[in-house]
Amino acid sequence: MSRVYNFNAGPAALPVEVLEKAREEMLDYAGSGMSVIEMSHRSKEFQAVNDTAEANVRKLMGVSDDYTVLFLQGGASLQFAMIPLNLRRPGKSAAFVNTGSWAGKAVKEAKITGDVEVIWDGSGSDYTRAPRPGELQVPAGAEYLHICSNETIGGIRFADFPVSDVPLVADMSSEIMSRAVDVNRFGMIYGGAQKNIGPSGLALVILRKDLMERVTDAVPVFMRYTTHAKDKSLYNTPNTWGIYILKLVTDRLLENGGIPAIQKINEDKAGLLYGTLDTSDFWRTVAERESRSIMNVVWRLPSEELEEKFVAEAKKAGMIGLKGHRSVGGIRASIYNAVTMEAVQALVDFMKEFEKQNG
Amino acid sequence: MSRVYNFNAGPAALPVEVLEKAREEMLDYAGSGMSVIEMSHRSKEFQAVNDTAEANVRKLMGVSDDYTVLFLQGGASLQFAMIPLNLRRPGKSAAFVNTGSWAGKAVKEAKITGDVEVIWDGSGSDYTRAPRPGELQVPAGAEYLHICSNETIGGIRFADFPVSDVPLVADMSSEIMSRAVDVNRFGMIYGGAQKNIGPSGLALVILRKDLMERVTDAVPVFMRYTTHAKDKSLYNTPNTWGIYILKLVTDRLLENGGIPAIQKINEDKAGLLYGTLDTSDFWRTVAERESRSIMNVVWRLPSEELEEKFVAEAKKAGMIGLKGHRSVGGIRASIYNAVTMEAVQALVDFMKEFEKQNG
Repeated sequence: MSRVYNFNAGPAALPVEVLEKAREEMLDYAGSGMSVIEMSHRSKEFQAVNDTAEANVRKLMGVSDDYTVLFLQGGASLQFAMIPLNLRRPGKSAAFVNTGSWAGKAVKEAKITGDVEVIWDGSGSDYTRAPRPGELQVPAGAEYLHICSNETIGGIRFADFPVSDVPLVADMSSEIMSRAVDVNRFGMIYGGAQKNIGPSGLALVILRKDLMERVTDAVPVFMRYTTHAKDKSLYNTPNTWGIYILKLVTDRLLENGGIPAIQKINEDKAGLLYGTLDTSDFWRTVAERESRSIMNVVWRLPSEELEEKFVAEAKKAGMIGLKGHRSVGGIRASIYNAVTMEAVQALVDFMKEFEKQNG
Repeated sequence: MSRVYNFNAGPAALPVEVLEKAREEMLDYAGSGMSVIEMSHRSKEFQAVNDTAEANVRKLMGVSDDYTVLFLQGGASLQFAMIPLNLRRPGKSAAFVNTGSWAGKAVKEAKITGDVEVIWDGSGSDYTRAPRPGELQVPAGAEYLHICSNETIGGIRFADFPVSDVPLVADMSSEIMSRAVDVNRFGMIYGGAQKNIGPSGLALVILRKDLMERVTDAVPVFMRYTTHAKDKSLYNTPNTWGIYILKLVTDRLLENGGIPAIQKINEDKAGLLYGTLDTSDFWRTVAERESRSIMNVVWRLPSEELEEKFVAEAKKAGMIGLKGHRSVGGIRASIYNAVTMEAVQALVDFMKEFEKQNG
């Protein structure tokens, strides 16, 4: 067996140590005589997994008791619907920044159930940057300001987060736990787990508790944050396997120095890759420099033919997931927490050779 | 390592062969150099898993092209909210049969967004039976008739399904693929996977396509069946690992004779257990005979003390998950497809010995 270098945008690479641990425990978790996947979500054994996963999130991100931490299903996409239903009271509006595909999906979903104000739209600059600090005017009456902190498809991020008088709500799916963030600046942080912190089918929600006072009885029970918060994510059967894998991933993050340590590695990885891209006109990055994502690096080659050749030859060389999203084309390398420096070095070595042959 | 006999109500036992296969493929699925859990849901490899899982469901249950087959997140609980939002048009009502805890939850959720008529309620008989054929009068104007075909907590089921002029919608979470069912009699069949066909975090929905014409633009995009049907369950990132495990479970069902074969085994298992319960006054079954579930067998002992002792000693003997649900007490053995005759025989042997010691 040989493992590939996995640059998938999500679901994405997991640390090999996590997969090995899951394999080891597949038929018998901690002497219980069964797999975690076969355990009652109400059992003592699983409750311990669930509690540890939550404690790990709190420790790693510095989440205080003012916030509830939830493990939900439906990914960020269900959150796009739940957030306005819960946090935007009837007759009120919410403000959105439109930085690209994912921010746009959140806008679209929020419009169905109420008023939306898009206060900044990146379409004029082809979504190649996030707004700068001071560029945003948030209406005082808005219930919250929604951003996508890192656009997986466009490869841009907020280097600094907006300052706002209304609660800031951020979709961090593709960068959660990749860099230090002051949770206290946010009303809510959420994300699908399948990029940086676990498998698909699981979403992490970190929500300031006082915002739950806005939830009304008109919202379906399952769609209320209050429902899930009251039962510590066990109102109904959660994705138990997903929570278990998230626990293993966060155990490992804690052992290895937490978010400051992984942030340093991520910045080094991104530095190496952007550094290579910047040395030659053969490569053309898409994002404006100050908005460059350190998780999703997007670039073009001189022609679509060369891009196809690049993806095909990279695959032969054991590097997969490099094709850009169908909506933007080009090349994208997602270099999440579980993608090692070794993998990025291999990619950069391959790029240099490819340029020599085709430049 | 020794595996326990697992009588959990859900998440529940999986076939050991499925776990072994998942373990074997954990770091490298079919020579791809990565785990299924690390694969893009848009990759050829995962699409093949997804397509095979759907084809397996269609083959096993005889699902025609008149129906869409969806793998969704949020379990049956999200369906409780989605069904009325999609299938009950504004201003119309839906009919419900209330056979216990799960049917009741579906009623509660449907009431939040519109009109509900509970046409039969088992509370007068402590939810110990399902309605008999001919006992139900479905209002002609109802958009659909909702039933829970097997109540996991009460241990009762519909031996025969109601005949109705309006579409029949059935929550089959705790008995799906345990017995032959004529899908064409239903407008929709759905269920959480975590009892009979896979892990938690995954719901199977089988929906007659013409019913999707009822869906309006007022429903959040993520909550519309049309959204997920259009993209073959890949509108957003699904629970890829869950679909993979469901594929392995259904592969195995097909290899072993399909639903008729597992139904025979299930009836034999239930026959052995109910037979033992019926031989002595020491045990007292709860469900009326004609409504006895063959998946969830619920019974009482002469005292709560003896029930606690039974559960504790069974656990020592390697049998777990036998405590009745907190809302009804007593003993419950869930004997889903993956629970072997050997496990039920071990339970029955233990029961005979326990009765001898304590009777």
